[in-house]
Amino acid sequence: MSNQALEMSGAQLLGDTESRNGRDTFTAVDPCDAKALAPQFHAATAEEVERALELAAAAHPAFEALGRERRAQFLEAIAAEIEALGAPLLERANAETGLPLGRLEGERGRTTGQLRLFARTVRAGDYLGLRIDHGDPKRSPLPKPDVRSMAHALGPVVVFGASNFPLAFSVAGGDTAAALAAGCPVVVKGHPNHPGTSELVGRAIVRAARSTGMPAGVFSLVQGPAPEVGEMLVQHPATRAVAFTGSLRGGRALFDLAQRRPVPIPVFAEMGSVNPVFLLPASVAADPVAHGRALAASVTQGVGQFCTNPGLIVLRADGAGEALLASLAEALSAVPEAPLLHAGIKRGFEGGLARLAARERVKVHVEAKAEGPCHARGALLSIPAQSFLDEPVAHEEVFGPSTLAVLCSDERELLAVAASLAGQLTATLHAATDDRELVQALIPMLAQRAGRVLFGGYPTGVEVCDAMVHGGPYPATTDSRSTSVGTNAIQRFVRPVAYQNFPEELLPAELRDGSGCTALRLTDGVYDARREDRV
Amino acid sequence: MSNQALEMSGAQLLGDTESRNGRDTFTAVDPCDAKALAPQFHAATAEEVERALELAAAAHPAFEALGRERRAQFLEAIAAEIEALGAPLLERANAETGLPLGRLEGERGRTTGQLRLFARTVRAGDYLGLRIDHGDPKRSPLPKPDVRSMAHALGPVVVFGASNFPLAFSVAGGDTAAALAAGCPVVVKGHPNHPGTSELVGRAIVRAARSTGMPAGVFSLVQGPAPEVGEMLVQHPATRAVAFTGSLRGGRALFDLAQRRPVPIPVFAEMGSVNPVFLLPASVAADPVAHGRALAASVTQGVGQFCTNPGLIVLRADGAGEALLASLAEALSAVPEAPLLHAGIKRGFEGGLARLAARERVKVHVEAKAEGPCHARGALLSIPAQSFLDEPVAHEEVFGPSTLAVLCSDERELLAVAASLAGQLTATLHAATDDRELVQALIPMLAQRAGRVLFGGYPTGVEVCDAMVHGGPYPATTDSRSTSVGTNAIQRFVRPVAYQNFPEELLPAELRDGSGCTALRLTDGVYDARREDRV
Repeated sequence: MSNQALEMSGAQLLGDTESRNGRDTFTAVDPCDAKALAPQFHAATAEEVERALELAAAAHPAFEALGRERRAQFLEAIAAEIEALGAPLLERANAETGLPLGRLEGERGRTTGQLRLFARTVRAGDYLGLRIDHGDPKRSPLPKPDVRSMAHALGPVVVFGASNFPLAFSVAGGDTAAALAAGCPVVVKGHPNHPGTSELVGRAIVRAARSTGMPAGVFSLVQGPAPEVGEMLVQHPATRAVAFTGSLRGGRALFDLAQRRPVPIPVFAEMGSVNPVFLLPASVAADPVAHGRALAASVTQGVGQFCTNPGLIVLRADGAGEALLASLAEALSAVPEAPLLHAGIKRGFEGGLARLAARERVKVHVEAKAEGPCHARGALLSIPAQSFLDEPVAHEEVFGPSTLAVLCSDERELLAVAASLAGQLTATLHAATDDRELVQALIPMLAQRAGRVLFGGYPTGVEVCDAMVHGGPYPATTDSRSTSVGTNAIQRFVRPVAYQNFPEELLPAELRDGSGCTALRLTDGVYDARREDRV
Repeated sequence: MSNQALEMSGAQLLGDTESRNGRDTFTAVDPCDAKALAPQFHAATAEEVERALELAAAAHPAFEALGRERRAQFLEAIAAEIEALGAPLLERANAETGLPLGRLEGERGRTTGQLRLFARTVRAGDYLGLRIDHGDPKRSPLPKPDVRSMAHALGPVVVFGASNFPLAFSVAGGDTAAALAAGCPVVVKGHPNHPGTSELVGRAIVRAARSTGMPAGVFSLVQGPAPEVGEMLVQHPATRAVAFTGSLRGGRALFDLAQRRPVPIPVFAEMGSVNPVFLLPASVAADPVAHGRALAASVTQGVGQFCTNPGLIVLRADGAGEALLASLAEALSAVPEAPLLHAGIKRGFEGGLARLAARERVKVHVEAKAEGPCHARGALLSIPAQSFLDEPVAHEEVFGPSTLAVLCSDERELLAVAASLAGQLTATLHAATDDRELVQALIPMLAQRAGRVLFGGYPTGVEVCDAMVHGGPYPATTDSRSTSVGTNAIQRFVRPVAYQNFPEELLPAELRDGSGCTALRLTDGVYDARREDRV
């Protein structure tokens, strides 16, 4: 690896140029000791934001016209360039986020895996939604036109890097991979808490764009801690869609801004949720201690900073339930304190728990108190079901390693808790044979309120696959009709275009009758692709 | 047909009950003579709106649980009940809209055809987007979960009836058919200019719901001329999506309202466009007179009240171009005046043309003046390309039978006009062999700006089929990623839900391995449905 590969200049990466015009600078901070990390990063100016989107708008037609095979090669080249950064990328990410190297290595594998999965998705072309209805000039009373449709790229997409996934949901993360796969140029707003990681990965993308002959402007990275940089990106007339992973407050602010534009644009904001886990009586009674231990592991995984962290558990207030809480409390107490991503998350976590603990009838079983500057420990609180139903604050996400137990006196209360839930990324059921009746009542209720329903297990750890839905009704996301993880995420960045009565030679290749197109295609009401040969 | 079938009581239809609590009443007006038509209709009260959405929310789980076959039967029963209304439905629609009986007969056929097409779509089940990724408990380092996903209904949908399609995009129109097909209960806000048509069709739906055993609340119809009725519907917490066809102003107002809700919801507003027709030099030169005549027929079809009306034609200011304009002007002048849908449209049409005519360098070739109270004639105006580029008002839709010719001095200007266009439902190219180079430059530009690109012909007359895209970038619609015509419209009203590690018997039937499911299904990366037997 060349030294150039590990350069961090603190610049904006604007297409294949760099720019350092901003006077305001900022640094990353190591959450383990709260000390600043070199180098200084420049905050993007209005002109630099403007330039990034001008370049992206100019690149859009050329990028889409290069075709699917070239885009797939670009995605694969990004994966290879990220791998070529080697251990120093992980070390920088570790210094900026406090996440352990082992976790970051896994996250890098997920990141490059996502890029390669989208390369396969683009090559297969099924996402294009090809449809052909042949015409019939002899139809009476009116001739039937020949109509054919396929997906086109929306245009420039603004991606906001997430703090909790410095690789897999940041500069070259899932949103960027899906948007590039669709044929959309991407402008990333790096998360201000890991600017070095962002720049290293950004440079890897720029190198990949150069080596695969992409148009300048297919990718830019702008940085800056002030909200204005993000606001300018969302408001720029060339921006066609926004992808965001973060807090409800941040996501809603960007959503509102985007909807008030003269030309509104879609915002795919994944804003987290409390991810309720329903622990049904027979299942709890079978082994309350094991349940408590497994929950503690899930609640504290990644210091509770997964958007699918189980922040709410719903169970019956009986003897087995008490045993479960005791086991959970014991297991949580045994987990050592660990650094959160940054001081802001610690403030939010402690503030959220304090607000909750101040409510009447909320009981604190295990406190979150930790000594390190950005550190936290797993916390457990409980609330009676009736109080939960009456108390809006108990429904809000507390981001970090805590969970709130909702104690139900009977099944009626348990169902009322389910009915009261807002939109969720996930909802989980733990049930044994004797819980069957309750399970059958709960499944449709949870399917109405969540993007993913789990039977057993825990929602943390989102599999990247075709069938995954990482989404859900508001406030989990701003668009429940899409997913941010898995191959279906590409659908967020395309729109269908129909071609009517076109001569064969002027049609996009995929829509020509004799093109030998192997992508899934609906022709005159019948899917004509045989897929057995294409796994 | 029973007399009951033709009853118009002026009531709100709330599930299978009716309600007439509103003190405010209104009537339809015959646009041919501006006279009021009996009976009086009651405007819905806040309580009636509340009741409609309470019923819809309560009906949602039961309606979806009935399954696809029962929903298909309901859609077919609606079609049959509409046909059973016979000629009196057409006569009432004719009195309320001034649209000729022949056109309304065709529109009724499209309406029942849409309902039956969606019944087939629901039965086939391909729209469910079934995906199965089998688990692998032995995968290292982490076991692979079993993940399966499919579409679920969003919940209650509010549909606004359109004035210009009193049957095909009104109470039982495309939006209602698509939403019911998806499993969403529907509350229709009838268009205040055809309340009698709305009530007759609404009662047909209620009868169909009863005869097929649908849950009460699967359908309601509320009426009223004041914007407040629609606003309450959009703001009600139970509403999950909104479908609208109408003006930019009306659509944007509902969109804004929906996005400002505590829980924002998708609004699918189809707001029309100017539908540019590019008449390229060699094509015009080949037969300018035929072009002029064909354009006149398209511009005045349905008194210019199609959302795909060609409101803008772009051509070169040469001899052939002048001959085309002369032929178009002559043909337009020969078309007799005809009633618009209501006096408001006449005011808007005349006001829009006056605003345009007042601009410097706009030339009026044929005036719209008509004598009837709601009547209009075809109008033709022209503007030089450079003025068009400088003049925002020239880009705005004038709803009615008029077109604006943009006169280009060369190909560079013609491409600049294309590049300046806002989002459109359609864009059309008329080209001959010698226009090839210009065509190849224009196609990707138009595909970026429109939902449907036509080669030859005219955009009026939207084929209802699988491949149709009736949509396009803002301001044509508020969601370019969807269509309001054709089978793909069902996708607007569903969202995917994933089931993780579910026991086979608790999964929805379509996601079970051994279910014999014939719908398109992606299993472990391969589509496993063979469709040859299912045309």
